[in-house]
This record gives sequence, C-alpha cells and structure tokens, in this order.
Amino acid sequence: MQIVSSPEEMRRIAQQVRQEGKTIGFVPTMGYLHEGHLSLVQKAKKASDFTVVSLFVNPTQFGPQEDLDRYPRDFHRDRELLENESVDLLFAPEKSALYPEGFSTVVRVEGLTDRLCGQSRPWHFGGVTLIVCKLFHLVQPQAAWFGQKDYQQCQVIRRMVRDLDFGIQIHVCPIIRENDGLAMSSRNRYLQPEERKQAPVLVRSLAAANQLFLEDERSAARLVSAIHSTLARSPEARIDYVEVVDAESLEPIETVVDPAVAVIAVYFGQTRLIDNHILGEDLSY
Amino acid sequence: MQIVSSPEEMRRIAQQVRQEGKTIGFVPTMGYLHEGHLSLVQKAKKASDFTVVSLFVNPTQFGPQEDLDRYPRDFHRDRELLENESVDLLFAPEKSALYPEGFSTVVRVEGLTDRLCGQSRPWHFGGVTLIVCKLFHLVQPQAAWFGQKDYQQCQVIRRMVRDLDFGIQIHVCPIIRENDGLAMSSRNRYLQPEERKQAPVLVRSLAAANQLFLEDERSAARLVSAIHSTLARSPEARIDYVEVVDAESLEPIETVVDPAVAVIAVYFGQTRLIDNHILGEDLSY
Repeated sequence: MQIVSSPEEMRRIAQQVRQEGKTIGFVPTMGYLHEGHLSLVQKAKKASDFTVVSLFVNPTQFGPQEDLDRYPRDFHRDRELLENESVDLLFAPEKSALYPEGFSTVVRVEGLTDRLCGQSRPWHFGGVTLIVCKLFHLVQPQAAWFGQKDYQQCQVIRRMVRDLDFGIQIHVCPIIRENDGLAMSSRNRYLQPEERKQAPVLVRSLAAANQLFLEDERSAARLVSAIHSTLARSPEARIDYVEVVDAESLEPIETVVDPAVAVIAVYFGQTRLIDNHILGEDLSY
Repeated sequence: MQIVSSPEEMRRIAQQVRQEGKTIGFVPTMGYLHEGHLSLVQKAKKASDFTVVSLFVNPTQFGPQEDLDRYPRDFHRDRELLENESVDLLFAPEKSALYPEGFSTVVRVEGLTDRLCGQSRPWHFGGVTLIVCKLFHLVQPQAAWFGQKDYQQCQVIRRMVRDLDFGIQIHVCPIIRENDGLAMSSRNRYLQPEERKQAPVLVRSLAAANQLFLEDERSAARLVSAIHSTLARSPEARIDYVEVVDAESLEPIETVVDPAVAVIAVYFGQTRLIDNHILGEDLSY
C-alpha cells in the first residue's frame, strides 16, 4: 500500500492511474476506522481497479466548541487495517497542505443542510462538501463510497455531485452495527460504560417505529411518537431531534407516501449519536 | 468542429480525449465573440492538443435588474468564427441542463469578491465561480484561458482553483483594444454613438495614471486622482469605482510598493464598462 501525504503527489498518481485506463474507487474517512469503514473499503475494492482511502480529520466541519482536538486518532492501527484490505493507496494529507494561508473558498449545498444535523451544527455540512470537493479533485475517482449512518451527509453529497457535474458515482452503503445494534461510529468510544449500555436505545426506537410502519401506520407524528416513547426509557438519553422525513428531500412530511426515513440524534452526556432507518426495510433489535 | 449541447456527451468526449493522452485547453465564454475572445482561443489552440470553447450566457452571474435577457447573442456568427480558428469542440449547453430543478449548490470565494465589481454586483462572482467549477468538471481541461479585462474575475478564479485543488493552469491574457483604445467587450454594442465616441476616456484615464507612475508617483490617492481628472472630461461618464489596489489581493493600498493595478468601472447611460491596467506596464493612448 502506498502512503501519500502530498496533495500534488496524490494528483500525479491519480492521473497516471487514469491514464492507464484503470478505474479509481474512493473512500474518504476521518480515520479511527471501524467495521463500517471497512465495509465501504471492501465494496470499493471489489468495484475498482485502484482503491484510495483518505484519512483526514477535517477541521472545517467541526464547530469551535466541538471535538476536533480530541477526535480519536490511531494512524498505525488504521494503516494496518487498510493494508489487510489490500487498499492500493492511503492518502493522509496535512491540514496546512489542504488549507493554505488565505484560503477563502466556500462550497455549500443550501436547503438540504438547513435542517436536522444542519440545525444543531450549522457549520458542519459546508465543511463536508468543501473537503469532499477538494478530495474528489485530488483523487479523481469514478466512484466513492459513503455510509448510510450519515444519512443527511449522503444526500448532501449526492446533491453537490449532481449540481456541480462531478460525474462521480456515489454509493451509499448499509449501516454496520455492533451486536447490540448500536451503529458503529468513531465517537462511540467517548461513551461512559453506563451510556454505552443504554446507547442501543437508538436502534430500538427506530425498530419500534419500523414495526409500527409495517403494521400500516402512515402518520409521521405517530411514528415519531413511537421513537420518543422508546427513547424515554433511557434516563441518559437527551434528544437533539427525532423526525420522519422524505428520504430524498429530507423535508418534513405528515403522512408517509413516498420513501421516508426516520432520523434521530441523541446526546449521551457530551456525546452526540446519530442513527436512521428507511421505513419498511428490515430492522430487528 | 464538433458542436455539443449535452453535458453528458461533453464529459464523455473529454474523458476519451484524456484517455488518449491528449491535453485539453479550454476557453469559457458567454458568446458574441470579439477579437479578445479569439486571442484566448488562439493561445489555447497553440498550447493544447484539443481545444474546447464553451458558449453559455450564465444566468446565475446576472442580477435581477441586469441585462441577462438582452445580452447579445449570435450563435451562427460565433460558430463561424470558432470554425475559422479550427477549434475542436464548441460546447453550448442549455440552461435547463446545467441548472436542473432543485439546484442548490453554492461555490463562492470570499474576501476577494467583496470589493470593486463585487460591491456593485454582489451576486456576480458567485455565479462566475459556480459556472466555471461546473464547466471545469465537464470539460476536464489541463489549462484555461481568461482575459485580463475581467481582472477581478481572473483573481477570483485563480483563488478558487488553488483552494479547491483543481490542478488546472489559469492563463490570464492581455486586454485586446479597439483602435481608439476601448477595451473590447460584448457590451460595447449597447453604447449610443455619442457614448461610444467618449468611451476611450477609460483607457486614457488609465494611461494618465500610468504616465504619472512612470514619473515615480507612488501615492495611490494621487494616481486615483489623475484617473478622476481624465474621466471628468467626458460629460457622459458616471463613475462606479476608481481604485489602485494590490495586484494579487485586490486590497486597497496607500503607497505602491508591490505590483499594483488601477481598476475602474464607469457607466455610460445604462451601460457599465470596466477596464484596468497593471501600473508600469506599457500603455499609450
């Protein structure tokens, strides 16, 4: 596995790979990899001639009071995991190389980013679209893989890719969960033992709404209310948002007619966890 | 010369050309071509294996009260001119193909765009960076050519290209002028005969400041004042702005130490003309 930190070298290698007529598959990450990331890498690997994984804790998607500095990092372990997956290239740039002095360009999706996580974290998606745009230019993939756990992020990136004519295929892959159903996330390590014990209440609340949906409930309010009731059983859980929205536009709905997704964000102490489920798809916890 | 209107076909052809190891040179235009455009095309042609010119009157860079609808168009003449230059491909997309329903992505350079033309036309540069970003993705050039007449635009595009890691070389080419010194512009055709007669006062005012600079004047205020005095001789000229700024950052300066540019915008009736000159370079009118 090649390890590259220079953006210019990354670009040079990508150009060479494409020149040879090979396809590039890309998985952007912030590192501290878990099985969720690795499931994306495996899919990218299968579909591409040359697989690139980036590892960059992107400062522009963190707010001033957020966990940028304490975000978990373990480069050696990440490298080993990616070597085991036979990834072709690990791109791990320095912050100063991606954000030089005088940096002043904005890439932002409007509308889709106003709600849900965008309301709690107004700076977040602008940072995501900016860094993904930059990485796409450097890595030059034909396709990129993202995890459905970050449901809104996936929709935002799809919109950006369409609007800016990137011509890159965006694959959204199923949420990978711990045995007890907790969606895998690098931030799960922040959880205190008691919080960790209660955290599967997120997926159970989504499963409750899903069960109701399968029993033909179509009122968004009643589906949301089922989620609330389940979450209320966990004394540590503080709700940020619970919504049932249109699966594509993320607009609020009253009645589920088109595909809809239940999306939730819940605090345990300082740790904010997110989860989601497309209503009607399998989920038993 | 191939004529392409479909963005997807444009992308397919560009990919094929790059696959063959050829370089793509690109000149984006809003059409109604004049010798200024053609000078860019000739330079692109000389430096590239495959030359693409785009022709698209981009709605997002016009304000609601501006001249989008009456902006001059002459597709047949433009096509003939580009055929004569042996351009390889003319890309002329439809508005609806580039701005589909639900379009909601913003690409913007901050800071650099707050001043000068960005102050008179606050929507303008966001529209420019958006369309240039989209066209770069579709045309996939190694290099693109722009005219120095739009000085601030060139700086804004260079910043975007650097910040977003486009890896595209941006060439800024000298202003092409009419015999009497008026900078060529598609908007010159809006001028009434008396306005057209007086319009060379722009270049003469820049020449006056340049002459003073060559005589060792380094006070920005006194250079600006020389421009004002010259413009005052034209009864039809209404000044939008007259400034001497740092040639790279476009920040106001008091004393010229580093390379500086005199930039002006002047109305004749409803028509807004811009011109500029890097102080110390040749200019005699």
